[in-house]
Amino acid sequence: MKLFSATVLSLSIVASAADGQQTIIEGARAMPTTEDIRAVAPALEKYAKDVVRGDLWQRPGLSVRDRSIVTVAALIARDQTVELPYYLNLALDNGVKPIELSEIITHLGFYTGWANAMDAVAAAKDVFKSRNIGADHLPPASGPQLPLDEAAEAQRATRVGEQFGKITPSLVQYTTDVLFRDLWLRPGLAPRDRSLVTVSALVATGQVAQITYHLNRAMDNGLTKEEAGEVVGHLAFYAGWPNAFSAAPAVKDVIEKRSR
Amino acid sequence: MKLFSATVLSLSIVASAADGQQTIIEGARAMPTTEDIRAVAPALEKYAKDVVRGDLWQRPGLSVRDRSIVTVAALIARDQTVELPYYLNLALDNGVKPIELSEIITHLGFYTGWANAMDAVAAAKDVFKSRNIGADHLPPASGPQLPLDEAAEAQRATRVGEQFGKITPSLVQYTTDVLFRDLWLRPGLAPRDRSLVTVSALVATGQVAQITYHLNRAMDNGLTKEEAGEVVGHLAFYAGWPNAFSAAPAVKDVIEKRSR
Amino acid sequence: MKLFSATVLSLSIVASAADGQQTIIEGARAMPTTEDIRAVAPALEKYAKDVVRGDLWQRPGLSVRDRSIVTVAALIARDQTVELPYYLNLALDNGVKPIELSEIITHLGFYTGWANAMDAVAAAKDVFKSRNIGADHLPPASGPQLPLDEAAEAQRATRVGEQFGKITPSLVQYTTDVLFRDLWLRPGLAPRDRSLVTVSALVATGQVAQITYHLNRAMDNGLTKEEAGEVVGHLAFYAGWPNAFSAAPAVKDVIEKRSR
Repeated sequence: MKLFSATVLSLSIVASAADGQQTIIEGARAMPTTEDIRAVAPALEKYAKDVVRGDLWQRPGLSVRDRSIVTVAALIARDQTVELPYYLNLALDNGVKPIELSEIITHLGFYTGWANAMDAVAAAKDVFKSRNIGADHLPPASGPQLPLDEAAEAQRATRVGEQFGKITPSLVQYTTDVLFRDLWLRPGLAPRDRSLVTVSALVATGQVAQITYHLNRAMDNGLTKEEAGEVVGHLAFYAGWPNAFSAAPAVKDVIEKRSR
Repeated sequence: MKLFSATVLSLSIVASAADGQQTIIEGARAMPTTEDIRAVAPALEKYAKDVVRGDLWQRPGLSVRDRSIVTVAALIARDQTVELPYYLNLALDNGVKPIELSEIITHLGFYTGWANAMDAVAAAKDVFKSRNIGADHLPPASGPQLPLDEAAEAQRATRVGEQFGKITPSLVQYTTDVLFRDLWLRPGLAPRDRSLVTVSALVATGQVAQITYHLNRAMDNGLTKEEAGEVVGHLAFYAGWPNAFSAAPAVKDVIEKRSR
Repeated sequence: MKLFSATVLSLSIVASAADGQQTIIEGARAMPTTEDIRAVAPALEKYAKDVVRGDLWQRPGLSVRDRSIVTVAALIARDQTVELPYYLNLALDNGVKPIELSEIITHLGFYTGWANAMDAVAAAKDVFKSRNIGADHLPPASGPQLPLDEAAEAQRATRVGEQFGKITPSLVQYTTDVLFRDLWLRPGLAPRDRSLVTVSALVATGQVAQITYHLNRAMDNGLTKEEAGEVVGHLAFYAGWPNAFSAAPAVKDVIEKRSR
């Protein structure tokens, strides 16, 4: 039932975008309407309708909530802000909570660059305002943390410290203190979803060398093999075929090694 | 003769941009004028005049039409929309047809990400409007297809299916059904030009791992060895030296293996 | 003493941005204010205050002037223009001269793509205007050059020519004539700083394959081992953790090989 209602919402949002009822960011370019797309690339509109909305988002291997998270993560990671308000609204309609979007933006400040997060803030600010999402729906700047697996974290810190501690001590120190002992322990976004955001951002920006560690972490955090494969297929559309095909061997390698 | 007239047009467009007669996209930043560039980086304007316009675009190994296609593909692939209206106009002046630009944008929706195509639509819409390019100049959303080399496609599909079919079935299925049995068969853009767009996008976004397959396909589709080398040199300017030098070993490898 | 005064300036600029006194580019999106950030991601503002401004920029291994250069290079390389006016102003406050910013933009036209430089021109134009920085503070389009190490350059040219001269003669020729016998010899930016800009751009855009050559060149030009490590840690914040961790092995390899 949840999938069905979410899908209906998704299509209604698409319709409203076509009617021009979208969140407008001051000084920002508006997302092209269906009419605009037809005035340049009629085939693109057909593919969007038949393949992207009509098939990809309906596939059972990954929920529409997860697809929304993956898409938002890809757009922020690639700093593509024109379509972001639309997909932030869609994410909220599909069950992603404001607190989770807030955490996703904060997380990607570290995993894709500070300016990407700032540009996402500009988009989300207007979306939140238009839906009356206030401070009471946002996570506190700091507060209680999720429990930490001290043994696993100590092992990670030792390994990275041995590799890079003498070369770039600041990177190693911030990775431990700010990322793994703080950011990753924030309770507003479940570790599995935080990993989903991270892996999506890595695939969407061609960061193949970092996929192995984070996909393993994602699967430790509960992402399934089937979901991982659907993430790659979904991102082919939102981050381009080359990023999907460059990620596929790394994803295959992780999944096969875990199956042994 | 064609090269000469195209070059004249190219220079006149440059002049008109300097005079401020450019397509303005609502809510978008305008391309800097010659005066703006001189107010920040006088050397950059000198290099643009002496090296880029005065030498690169005049080189005989790649036609100005092809250079326009390569440049437009690079800008869309890198989502750089400020200069895009100028280069879309230049492409039309240099003999690229509206139907071809429409197909290039559609193609890059898949090969560089959906939002890149949407941002290109926003730019192309105003360019098309200012030149009275209407629906009669655009390709249909669907229609008759180019013939398919069934044996070669079956071989490709089998190879990719064996590699990734169990890991990411959606990616494998869409690659066959939507890309190689549909998008690549659209007649509005010659396969050689479609390959040129694809290779340009790969080089321009540092997708080195995907160059081997697509450059071989491009050369099967008629791109010459000399043209391939000029594409790399051209993209050094439009996508940065590092992308050109990271692509060069892959390009060399393809060309040398085909010469044996 | 210099570090202290620069830091004070840095914090005052941050304050003025929060008060909304920032350079506004016509048609461009404004940088989010502190209030905007709190309305979306309160944690992000806390990290910015405690970690980025309160710790990262205060670290002793890299001067605030260098950190400004690294940050500006990263933003231009990643074509992130919203925060660029703020960091151009900060760079000027931290002792980077207008002539140096002009050279950085020109340099990155070649090392990150022409459109990146054009977008930086649009941002810098308004910053320069608001500070009354006129043509007398800019480098000439051409003029006297720094001395060239002919033997080292001949060796480089021979090596690259042997590798790629037959494949992409235009790339090889422009690399010699325009980059190493012209751009790199412009006196407005010290070779060490030019290398710092180049390495920062490579790390910030994931161009790992080009780091080895340019980091060696940077260290030949005077960049220290400690500074190189701090650049990587600094860019983790401004270009994302994955770019920092993908660069780290290449940086480690260069530093270790030079220590033997």
